[in-house]
Amino acid sequence: MLITHIEHIGIAVKDLDSAITYYENVLGLKCYAIEEVADQKVKTAFFKVGDTKIELLESTDPEGPIGKFIEKKGEGIHHIAFNVPELEEAIKEVDESGIQLIDKKPRKGAEGMNIAFLHPKSTFGVLTEFCEKAD
Amino acid sequence: MLITHIEHIGIAVKDLDSAITYYENVLGLKCYAIEEVADQKVKTAFFKVGDTKIELLESTDPEGPIGKFIEKKGEGIHHIAFNVPELEEAIKEVDESGIQLIDKKPRKGAEGMNIAFLHPKSTFGVLTEFCEKAD
Repeated sequence: MLITHIEHIGIAVKDLDSAITYYENVLGLKCYAIEEVADQKVKTAFFKVGDTKIELLESTDPEGPIGKFIEKKGEGIHHIAFNVPELEEAIKEVDESGIQLIDKKPRKGAEGMNIAFLHPKSTFGVLTEFCEKAD
Repeated sequence: MLITHIEHIGIAVKDLDSAITYYENVLGLKCYAIEEVADQKVKTAFFKVGDTKIELLESTDPEGPIGKFIEKKGEGIHHIAFNVPELEEAIKEVDESGIQLIDKKPRKGAEGMNIAFLHPKSTFGVLTEFCEKAD
């Protein structure tokens, strides 16, 4: 398994605009993109911090994963995403080691990346994502 | 406010040894240090991933902050720590912007760093830490 860096940290928020104001005006970070990911029922805002991004996630549907997360746990850090150069290889390795996967095959995430999620039951409570840059 | 990068992600775990085995054997990361921080009632294990660290946190006392967190929310991502070159200046700026601070003055954290926490009530549910390298 080769992980090069943390690609992003996903943070669930109720109101994207208010959260963007805090990250920009208080923390001094710059929102460089806003994108809706229909598949995951979220609107996202991206900030770069060193070689990692912060991805704020606002639910577009109470029944979507972020809507359910906020209802159950409140706003807060939702997942951590590791950059892997070879996603299919990484999925295979994790699967063979007995870790439960949410996605056994790559799918499309924000910013056009190929992604797959590991199940938090297998990863000490941390919803873990692998991301691979699309060619 | 100048944030250079995400210094670390703090993750609360029940059993440090089992979690280290997962991060090393499955994710291929290398634990480079284990340290007890008596002040925070935790034993920590550190991994480098790009310019960020993962800090696993096992409580040494059920009444400590990590023990209480796990009792309430279960294992999972506990906080995000930003590296700031000037901690006292960062604290002052955040305080003046009306954000609630847990620490109005720097204190000592793991790896000898000077640290201060912002209150998650003011930061959209994200327990947020500032870290400054000690001289």
